[in-house]
Amino acid sequence: MARKMDIKRLVKPCVRKLRAYKAEEPSGVRVKLDANESPYGFSLSHRAIASNRYPDPEGSAVRRVLARQMRVPKARIMLGNGSDELIYYLVTTFGGPVMYPTPTFVMFGHIARALGERAVEVPLGDDFDLDEKAMLGALRKERPKLTFLATPNNPTGNCFSAGTVLKIIEASRGIVVVDEAYMAFASQRGFAPLLADYPNMIIMRTLSKVGLAALRLGYMVASEEIIQEVGKVRLPFNVNAYSQALAEEALADRKGARLYIKAVVRERVRLIKELEKFPALEVYPSEANFILFRVRKDGAGAVHAKLLKRGVLVRNMDGAVKDTHRVSVGTDRENTAFLKAMKEIFNEKGPAGKKKSKGPKKH
Amino acid sequence: MARKMDIKRLVKPCVRKLRAYKAEEPSGVRVKLDANESPYGFSLSHRAIASNRYPDPEGSAVRRVLARQMRVPKARIMLGNGSDELIYYLVTTFGGPVMYPTPTFVMFGHIARALGERAVEVPLGDDFDLDEKAMLGALRKERPKLTFLATPNNPTGNCFSAGTVLKIIEASRGIVVVDEAYMAFASQRGFAPLLADYPNMIIMRTLSKVGLAALRLGYMVASEEIIQEVGKVRLPFNVNAYSQALAEEALADRKGARLYIKAVVRERVRLIKELEKFPALEVYPSEANFILFRVRKDGAGAVHAKLLKRGVLVRNMDGAVKDTHRVSVGTDRENTAFLKAMKEIFNEKGPAGKKKSKGPKKH
Repeated sequence: MARKMDIKRLVKPCVRKLRAYKAEEPSGVRVKLDANESPYGFSLSHRAIASNRYPDPEGSAVRRVLARQMRVPKARIMLGNGSDELIYYLVTTFGGPVMYPTPTFVMFGHIARALGERAVEVPLGDDFDLDEKAMLGALRKERPKLTFLATPNNPTGNCFSAGTVLKIIEASRGIVVVDEAYMAFASQRGFAPLLADYPNMIIMRTLSKVGLAALRLGYMVASEEIIQEVGKVRLPFNVNAYSQALAEEALADRKGARLYIKAVVRERVRLIKELEKFPALEVYPSEANFILFRVRKDGAGAVHAKLLKRGVLVRNMDGAVKDTHRVSVGTDRENTAFLKAMKEIFNEKGPAGKKKSKGPKKH
Repeated sequence: MARKMDIKRLVKPCVRKLRAYKAEEPSGVRVKLDANESPYGFSLSHRAIASNRYPDPEGSAVRRVLARQMRVPKARIMLGNGSDELIYYLVTTFGGPVMYPTPTFVMFGHIARALGERAVEVPLGDDFDLDEKAMLGALRKERPKLTFLATPNNPTGNCFSAGTVLKIIEASRGIVVVDEAYMAFASQRGFAPLLADYPNMIIMRTLSKVGLAALRLGYMVASEEIIQEVGKVRLPFNVNAYSQALAEEALADRKGARLYIKAVVRERVRLIKELEKFPALEVYPSEANFILFRVRKDGAGAVHAKLLKRGVLVRNMDGAVKDTHRVSVGTDRENTAFLKAMKEIFNEKGPAGKKKSKGPKKH
């Protein structure tokens, strides 16, 4: 059931009274002399992009595609120079306290602190799921303006219990941001269909995990009112013209995206199965495109260094979860190289990954 | 003579104690499984760019070229997703009050207000130069943490008196940002050679005015200490891989850039000469790639609308300087179309721009 919420009351006073910067875009312009662009472009244009013209400040073409795919009006979508930038804008707009479970995506806390807002950290339960009681208690006590819930969570890899997520959204008197950066790889479908019921919910997604990290394109879906308020602090040309054009093209390839995701999920299953064969490792379940594993007998740092010596780079996550590493799911070949290096390090026998992969070739 | 300055004391406490987010970049990596990138990229890669990999967080290649061209160490350069983003970071790092003369680039005030900092506005003198006495008085009274001086100034088009700029930098106990977005078109050479003498000075530049607005690439040059402090609030992947690659390529073409700038300056001279023939207009001198003019007899809005009806878009600057418009210098053809439309509107006779232009063709 749709809740009434006074979003404006949640907005920082300095932003509430701000007017969004509007770049003028009338139609029928033959001679555009309003934006101090150089009239001569460099000849490095990618197809139809004029390098000398500012990008579409509204990112209309990309938002149109996303709106169709997510079945929401375009006015409920905002693009960011990566999700990072959207987090910056959200903290700028609503201020703190900023609450999130730990461990989670480091940028929630980093950006809150950079902007001088208090960060409220609530440890996850032992199974890496949300500690419902602790979260609801912190909501009452700290009254966060913003709560960030990444599901699937990074670096733990699991989805949070959907029921607990909804309870948190319902109990919160502030904004709750569900960061679905890794949702494409999960068995869940995501929270977007519930947007109409929860006016204080924001869904955040990104193209970075589905083959387009180079572009820096994150987006969020929320009520029109939230988009308008956050729009006041958004820089007018925050997504460059190349990323917009390439994202539009890539988003049209739904079939390709599905194939990629399937291949990653298939390799994830294989990787987990193979890693579980190592007595020295505790492997955590994953609904994302990475796997967190704990090294029982060796220090986490040593494994990282030993892998690197063999040309394999994983992320040492010891600072977040003691003695753990996070390995991204690569191509079948990359995963096999990683498993081979792991076997060398742990003195296991026999090469892993004999099975032939049907994943798409890297191009 | 180099002044001693305690930059750290100027940094907001929340940023002072922050540690920069460091993306790991060891060498010798064959299998990169640390960043949760999708292993399969879309096939829209521009040349050698892997769409599925995050951009270089340090923007090293672009900074190397800029460092060579500006004769400063690479460590003194920071890239931004446009200058806009750098202004955001500067206000986040140092806080307010934020001082600037008016009228000037609107983003100084907009971003200061978005981030909840007080904006101190000091009107320019009648000739659009800095009001030295008023600026120095405001420095003493308001003690701004940040002062922004855009020279050449937008929308007025003139360079500020270099002597006054230096007096302001010397008198300021905060940071002074000299925004040289339009300096490529000026007769002055810019303030970069003085960086060693003024540890509280930051030079800001952009590729947007020299043919690459689509990329969103601004940069600033300052002391290593300032770059390090601001680096704490910079998002790690703030410049996408495509803009980095294309900027590197474009920056290598020094001869092309010089030709473009020459062509713009030549057309600017012509435009000013032609506009000065209109009795109804007051045309202000310009050292930038645009011209500000005041309409003596007609309302400013009316001219904007009448031009637009003829397909020509200029910027109505009535809100900044009463009854003015700002026209960007276009190609010879575009400028001639603009002048023709102006003649129709003001009932002047004869087509303008009979002279043949030697400017490079738009491509």
